[in-house]
Amino acid sequence: MNRTDDLNKWKRTVEVTMQELIESSEMPKRLRDAMSYSLEAGGKRIRPALVYAVLETYGVPVVRGREVASALEMVHTYSLIHDDLPAMDDDDLRRGRPTNHRQFDEATAILAGDALLTDAFRILTEMPIPATDIVEIIRIFGLAAGSSGMVGGQLDDMLAEKRSDVTLQELQSIHERKTGALLVYALEAGAILAGASREDRARLKQFGRHLGIAFQIQDDILDIIGDEQAIGKRVGSDEQNDKTTYPKLLGLDGAKRALNEEVGAAQDAIESLSVPAPLLLEMLSFVVKRNH
Amino acid sequence: MNRTDDLNKWKRTVEVTMQELIESSEMPKRLRDAMSYSLEAGGKRIRPALVYAVLETYGVPVVRGREVASALEMVHTYSLIHDDLPAMDDDDLRRGRPTNHRQFDEATAILAGDALLTDAFRILTEMPIPATDIVEIIRIFGLAAGSSGMVGGQLDDMLAEKRSDVTLQELQSIHERKTGALLVYALEAGAILAGASREDRARLKQFGRHLGIAFQIQDDILDIIGDEQAIGKRVGSDEQNDKTTYPKLLGLDGAKRALNEEVGAAQDAIESLSVPAPLLLEMLSFVVKRNH
Repeated sequence: MNRTDDLNKWKRTVEVTMQELIESSEMPKRLRDAMSYSLEAGGKRIRPALVYAVLETYGVPVVRGREVASALEMVHTYSLIHDDLPAMDDDDLRRGRPTNHRQFDEATAILAGDALLTDAFRILTEMPIPATDIVEIIRIFGLAAGSSGMVGGQLDDMLAEKRSDVTLQELQSIHERKTGALLVYALEAGAILAGASREDRARLKQFGRHLGIAFQIQDDILDIIGDEQAIGKRVGSDEQNDKTTYPKLLGLDGAKRALNEEVGAAQDAIESLSVPAPLLLEMLSFVVKRNH
Repeated sequence: MNRTDDLNKWKRTVEVTMQELIESSEMPKRLRDAMSYSLEAGGKRIRPALVYAVLETYGVPVVRGREVASALEMVHTYSLIHDDLPAMDDDDLRRGRPTNHRQFDEATAILAGDALLTDAFRILTEMPIPATDIVEIIRIFGLAAGSSGMVGGQLDDMLAEKRSDVTLQELQSIHERKTGALLVYALEAGAILAGASREDRARLKQFGRHLGIAFQIQDDILDIIGDEQAIGKRVGSDEQNDKTTYPKLLGLDGAKRALNEEVGAAQDAIESLSVPAPLLLEMLSFVVKRNH
């Protein structure tokens, strides 16, 4: 079995785990349907894959990452549901299917997001690991997902959309929080679960930071040169919305150069780890070479 | 200093704590403003007061309840912000002031709610108590606030509003989750913080359940006979919206009788505790005698 098979198997494991968690919890049918609808929508499952890759790197049974991977994907999913709402991005399609509020209704979508976020924290309390590790994993999850992380980045992104003078530094800060924080979290939580050293934990976070920026630059580039079918949404929407992007600030070639720099820095971080990490390198290359 | 002074002092402590938590966290100014706006809106702070009352009952320094009380009030506040949204109850006023989305905008209100919920969980990780207790306190918080608790109750309430054949049993189940779960949580978390026995913990939860139902019946009664000025919103709105309430199902006198029964059951639970709990009795009487 090669690594792509491995990743696909792990992807299925996480999807099954999330489904089991939703099924085993008593809740209104409509709420369960709405939560499942968005959890099942597929997606790249990059955050769970990063947890998996870290555990595999340290030779730790990957099943130990079940709850963190599920919680990550649930919080990522809630953020997409709320982002798509009419008051936010007002999107009708997500991964080629109606968005949650189009499939159900706005109120249900808001509540499905709220429930995914809340249940994600609860799931983390059920990990069969020392309580001190659980507390630390929940603490940094809150930091990554809350006001100082993802939600703060989302709000600044919204404010930036109304301005045409957004600087590269601001753009970076927004992405570091809006999408980067959860990626870094996947690596840091993986490091804790794997019992990695303090130094390796810092390097994995560093890797996550560069991976996150690379991910975002690639997203912006794909919006210009990508394949609409593969992405599952309209191409060119950034330019149409006059959105500040890396290509807008740096030009397409400049954005590609910046992407290469981030990839290089991410590779450096991996190579400074105390163990070889081919799977993390593969994840990096997947992020850069993906077409959606 | 009498107990009302005590409660007021504790109320201020919780308000200051929440403010400190928001101030000390790095986040976009607009997000902080929106979160503070609703946290500062006042309210009865009943959930924090219940935590305080349990700690006081067991002679434990009440400062130990700081984080739980703040997290409770933050989650209660987020639920009000999201409930007020146009897609939900579409309310313009809350406690006599513009609702969060009227004061800011819908997107900001959604994100302020998301941040309050996420940050509440993070705050609980910072309690200076054994990690196993923190994990248990977070676990039951997730159950009380998530799909099986508050959010599930809110969704069922929304569905029930469209129906005219809601039974007493359904009404009770909705309230037990929508408003009751966090009240019960306040008592259960207080019991854990106070190191109460297993038996007392069960009795405190029982007290919480009856207090929650009494609270809701009183709410319904106030909507009929209450003072608009004191409540801070229109009176008679339930009947106007053809909402299923206790008075609608039982008549006003029947609702008053049901209220007395719940109060009696709540008193019984308190009297079966291993310690006298005059402060909890006072809280109960406050809930029943309040005019808003």
